[in-house]
Amino acid sequence: MSVISLLTDFGTDDAYGGIMKGVILTIAPKAQLIDITHQISPQNLIQAAYQIHSAYRYFPKGTVHVIVVDPGVGSQRSILAVAADEHFFLAPDNGVLTLIIEKSPICRVVKVENELFFLTPVSNTFHGRDIFAPVAARISLGTDIAKLGSNFSPAEVVRLSLPKPIPIGKGKFAGTIIDIDRFGNLITNIDEVMIRSLLSQSSGNIVVHIKGHIIAGLSGSYADASPGTPLAILGSRGYLEISVNRGNAKRHFDAIFGDFVEIITT
Amino acid sequence: MSVISLLTDFGTDDAYGGIMKGVILTIAPKAQLIDITHQISPQNLIQAAYQIHSAYRYFPKGTVHVIVVDPGVGSQRSILAVAADEHFFLAPDNGVLTLIIEKSPICRVVKVENELFFLTPVSNTFHGRDIFAPVAARISLGTDIAKLGSNFSPAEVVRLSLPKPIPIGKGKFAGTIIDIDRFGNLITNIDEVMIRSLLSQSSGNIVVHIKGHIIAGLSGSYADASPGTPLAILGSRGYLEISVNRGNAKRHFDAIFGDFVEIITT
Amino acid sequence: MSVISLLTDFGTDDAYGGIMKGVILTIAPKAQLIDITHQISPQNLIQAAYQIHSAYRYFPKGTVHVIVVDPGVGSQRSILAVAADEHFFLAPDNGVLTLIIEKSPICRVVKVENELFFLTPVSNTFHGRDIFAPVAARISLGTDIAKLGSNFSPAEVVRLSLPKPIPIGKGKFAGTIIDIDRFGNLITNIDEVMIRSLLSQSSGNIVVHIKGHIIAGLSGSYADASPGTPLAILGSRGYLEISVNRGNAKRHFDAIFGDFVEIITT
Repeated sequence: MSVISLLTDFGTDDAYGGIMKGVILTIAPKAQLIDITHQISPQNLIQAAYQIHSAYRYFPKGTVHVIVVDPGVGSQRSILAVAADEHFFLAPDNGVLTLIIEKSPICRVVKVENELFFLTPVSNTFHGRDIFAPVAARISLGTDIAKLGSNFSPAEVVRLSLPKPIPIGKGKFAGTIIDIDRFGNLITNIDEVMIRSLLSQSSGNIVVHIKGHIIAGLSGSYADASPGTPLAILGSRGYLEISVNRGNAKRHFDAIFGDFVEIITT
Repeated sequence: MSVISLLTDFGTDDAYGGIMKGVILTIAPKAQLIDITHQISPQNLIQAAYQIHSAYRYFPKGTVHVIVVDPGVGSQRSILAVAADEHFFLAPDNGVLTLIIEKSPICRVVKVENELFFLTPVSNTFHGRDIFAPVAARISLGTDIAKLGSNFSPAEVVRLSLPKPIPIGKGKFAGTIIDIDRFGNLITNIDEVMIRSLLSQSSGNIVVHIKGHIIAGLSGSYADASPGTPLAILGSRGYLEISVNRGNAKRHFDAIFGDFVEIITT
Repeated sequence: MSVISLLTDFGTDDAYGGIMKGVILTIAPKAQLIDITHQISPQNLIQAAYQIHSAYRYFPKGTVHVIVVDPGVGSQRSILAVAADEHFFLAPDNGVLTLIIEKSPICRVVKVENELFFLTPVSNTFHGRDIFAPVAARISLGTDIAKLGSNFSPAEVVRLSLPKPIPIGKGKFAGTIIDIDRFGNLITNIDEVMIRSLLSQSSGNIVVHIKGHIIAGLSGSYADASPGTPLAILGSRGYLEISVNRGNAKRHFDAIFGDFVEIITT
């Protein structure tokens, strides 16, 4: 019994996600189907790229992760099956796999072309149902991805230009907010490695500048700050997050996706 | 291990859907439970009727589809178990099964009356928990629907008066928008058969009129139109859809459920 | 194969719930994972306490109910594993278990401390992933909760001060609205036992006062009132509810969480 995870921008008002699961269970009746989320903003490839990269490692080895954020459905864009870090990924070749490809030392990529594994006829508007679901089911049953089509060079996979933190002076980095969660926590693109490197260069103290405000020091937990007070913390995804203890940092700072954050050693 | 799908207007903020699943698993521990959607607009029977008809065929044969959109709960309305097209359907007799009954050549209908299969006591406000869930679990375990109650004539099942496309002249049909999905795609009630018939009568060209705008021709995929441009396409549900490539047709046309669409051969 | 239910305030836009499921399936591949809801208002302990108490009894005996509404994550608050009424509960010690503890005659409580069962490292912001998920998986596989840590006195579990109905004269109770569901039904804290006691003291008639309006009598079902008309009913959770047949009582009365309701014998 293997696990198939779904990450889409379908929402849950429509039947699209449920229909994909129906197709999968027709082929692989014992699959364990897990929704990572269906609430990626419509066609937001950057958000999908970060979400799958943060989430996949917490699933069992061998999980088939199906990512359907696919504004190019029905066009000439390819569909890729990727084996990396002992997980499988099935996604359109539009950049949603950027972080998987960049951060996995070894990965094998196949262009999905073998129509024997597709539903017939294949619609031009819902490859989630007609290609992704039946192919994911087959992979979960043990079909070697080599049988899905021809080898594809990892170097040729479409990459998104993800916002990277920029050094803006000695002991200073400028990052951006790449996600905001339900609690209003602001997730930045400044990762654990970068924070540790800053800390090691300095007396061990840092400050964070966000929208004209200053947060002194890294907190170990939300409760290190008084209720209603902002704090900076190494979040559960491995990135610097700005939070408000028992509050909402998005509202506190009137922050949006893409806002700048500076982290400075002192 | 059989599949039970759920289609309700419960939303996901409350525990109602989860409680139904708890009841099902108490009786049928190995059931595969799949949400089609819980986001039917409260008490919108038309939307539910179209959704279950578009979705069910993608599930394995033998799936038990439970439809709880039930404004008459606790009144004298009946609950029906239907076997059609090698699937089972369990729903209130309020019209949500209209398309299943009309489009399946052979179906068997039973009025669900046998209280041995219900939870006790049966509340008057949550038959989803007290009747639908335990009965669905029993059907999934192989109980013949004949044991659930007395035979019921398919001809007597409540039918909704669904909006039908109207011929408005030679080579012209007027349809309506019957659903709008998360991407803003406008799903009409003009189906594949009707479109093919129009195309065969003409030089093969059609135009679509919607809210004072004209869309020329049927597209094969979203990418056939430039980004931001409207297009007409045979959608994945088998109906004519109006979309905007990488955009949102609902916003583009300020369209709502029930708006008219004309399709005209040229 | 045992059942694990999830009740959180994570919402479904983020990957948090999906990640917890990935962790659980890594340890307990055959677990049946059921969402009660992820839509508890952020950090609303009272809502969570009522929801889990209304829902748990409809799940199979032995179900592990995981409640992650946890504003104190990373602070010194404890995590408790509770065996009560043949179900298991895993939750922060912040009051979400108040009704489980108060209403179960016998329950066993253990403070979860044994780090052997945790992911490593344990983050300070996502114990759902690092502690709750792996521990729930172990309980579902049969690990005795005694192995999770030291015994904890049920009397010392944190209790919420839940709003209790107040007698305000002979045959009169004042209650409050403790939840409002998707249909706009107003769920009060006046329970079945209290209603029966009022009915037995009187001629059997009651009236309900809400926001300056009077509803005469208890209805047996929604359909007892004409469409658009308010009614009082013993709801499926075992509490007095105020509804509008085929309408929305929340909008009808402009009601909010915490509003007062009086129930009076006549």
